[in-house]
Amino acid sequence: MPSNKSIIFKAVPDGYPVAGEHMELVTKEIDIENFSLADERYSSYEIGQVLDGYGIAIVVKSNNKKYQVGDYFVGLIGWEEYSHITANVVSAEALAKEIFTKFKVPESHFIGLLGIPGMSAYVGLNKIGQPKKAASGAVGQVVGQIAKIKGLRVIGSASDDSKIKYLEEELKFDGAFNYKTCNVDKKLKELCPNGIDIYFDNVGGETLDIVINHLNNFARVVACGMISQYNTKDHYGVKNLIQIIGKRVLIQGFIVSDHFQEMESFRKEMVEWFKQGKLKYKEDIVEGIQNAPQALINILTGKKFGKMIVKIC
Amino acid sequence: MPSNKSIIFKAVPDGYPVAGEHMELVTKEIDIENFSLADERYSSYEIGQVLDGYGIAIVVKSNNKKYQVGDYFVGLIGWEEYSHITANVVSAEALAKEIFTKFKVPESHFIGLLGIPGMSAYVGLNKIGQPKKAASGAVGQVVGQIAKIKGLRVIGSASDDSKIKYLEEELKFDGAFNYKTCNVDKKLKELCPNGIDIYFDNVGGETLDIVINHLNNFARVVACGMISQYNTKDHYGVKNLIQIIGKRVLIQGFIVSDHFQEMESFRKEMVEWFKQGKLKYKEDIVEGIQNAPQALINILTGKKFGKMIVKIC
Repeated sequence: MPSNKSIIFKAVPDGYPVAGEHMELVTKEIDIENFSLADERYSSYEIGQVLDGYGIAIVVKSNNKKYQVGDYFVGLIGWEEYSHITANVVSAEALAKEIFTKFKVPESHFIGLLGIPGMSAYVGLNKIGQPKKAASGAVGQVVGQIAKIKGLRVIGSASDDSKIKYLEEELKFDGAFNYKTCNVDKKLKELCPNGIDIYFDNVGGETLDIVINHLNNFARVVACGMISQYNTKDHYGVKNLIQIIGKRVLIQGFIVSDHFQEMESFRKEMVEWFKQGKLKYKEDIVEGIQNAPQALINILTGKKFGKMIVKIC
Repeated sequence: MPSNKSIIFKAVPDGYPVAGEHMELVTKEIDIENFSLADERYSSYEIGQVLDGYGIAIVVKSNNKKYQVGDYFVGLIGWEEYSHITANVVSAEALAKEIFTKFKVPESHFIGLLGIPGMSAYVGLNKIGQPKKAASGAVGQVVGQIAKIKGLRVIGSASDDSKIKYLEEELKFDGAFNYKTCNVDKKLKELCPNGIDIYFDNVGGETLDIVINHLNNFARVVACGMISQYNTKDHYGVKNLIQIIGKRVLIQGFIVSDHFQEMESFRKEMVEWFKQGKLKYKEDIVEGIQNAPQALINILTGKKFGKMIVKIC
């Protein structure tokens, strides 16, 4: 019987998780032939259970007519070598195997540029940001490029200088700064002398607070993520919220899955831009399931560059 | 020549303003006959200048064909016995003298129920709150009643117990609590066991922070005012903002004057409800211009009950 390496959720972290302590690599045998396929399984965020995330897998056993052995599956899968994808996950999944043959772009892009991060950028900017004339993470790099395609002036922020260089030199952003090392308020005054109309927020906390200071009247804040606040109990208190009244600011939290009905138009437009060379997408690929916990920690601490992808097998 | 008592802006307060110290009563003679009517005048928020606010005045001199001596004017006027209303203010004013004869409701209601506070309640609830199935200030008491008319379950919050009693017994809110004395988190759990869909925020600060904890998915926060944050340099830091992503919360700052094009439909519907007895409106009337500074301070500190109106003459 083949062995199956999995990363399980071992303990709730207090701050940032530690590989080994809060996530653990376990190896079990798996009897694929006699494995009983179910409609639902455990929740992935319970102690002792395998973690999950968006990934690409090849089907080795299936009782679903849409998926034959050898087909690709793109969607929520366990952090493991062999993962049991249940009917509820498959049916909730807007991504289907046909996409690989339909669009001819690198496979990994279906969990990045054309997956959840790309779609978060696309939907968040278009529907909430309402670009009228808007970074380096999985989402931010895409938002900035779409905004440039739409003719906006784009300033990016990221957490290290190599990313800043990439944003300015490769993605041709109009400016970029390291929010961890510079005086954000001063930088924004310098880079956005006419204020900010759209803020696509993936950071939250103090950065958001300072940005509010620079928002123009009728500005839109796309609240997509607040990575600075994920692993701390001592959340930063945003003090400038009072400004949103006089400035008539819109702040809208959103989750991309609410917008999956737009998957087709999103993908069609994005692939076109990608093939025209208008969109670049940086990936940070880590090899081996055993490195998945550290890869997650690197996302949380900013020690990665672009969409983090773990190549399991 | 008649004398004209005015309240001038004397100094910028550090925290709450103090009557006499930051606002001062001055008396000057005014030569009405030879007074030169101008298109524009000073800004009311400069040191030494007369303060202004929404009020009702009787015209004693006019070079505007629309306003004859003896007519009423409703709009922005100085805190003074005789006030010079310039052309730019008159033309910006959506409120016209005809309203008194058109709608037969108490005059004072045109700066309350049918004025800026009433319209803030109406527009904010309808356009941002999107009542699908939302207190005791000038705005809050109206929001709650409109929300009741629309069939919503309404919980009010106010800053003293007599207001709470009024909200519950007179306005028939489904519940009300004193946000200054009770444990807001506990109270909300008790009064809103199914969470909150619309929060009409006139308070901001800690109350907003706690409310975010109780918001449902897709909740709307109408950011109309943040009175807890107006007179302090040490703004409260809102820590729960991170929740707005997962809950897909909309937070929209707004100023009612952006919506003046809806004045007519607002007034028509409100007067109908008022005449049907579906809307009550509590006013706190203070006599004498000399008491205006303290009246303002009472708004800021919550020591008033309903729309604050100063009867100058």
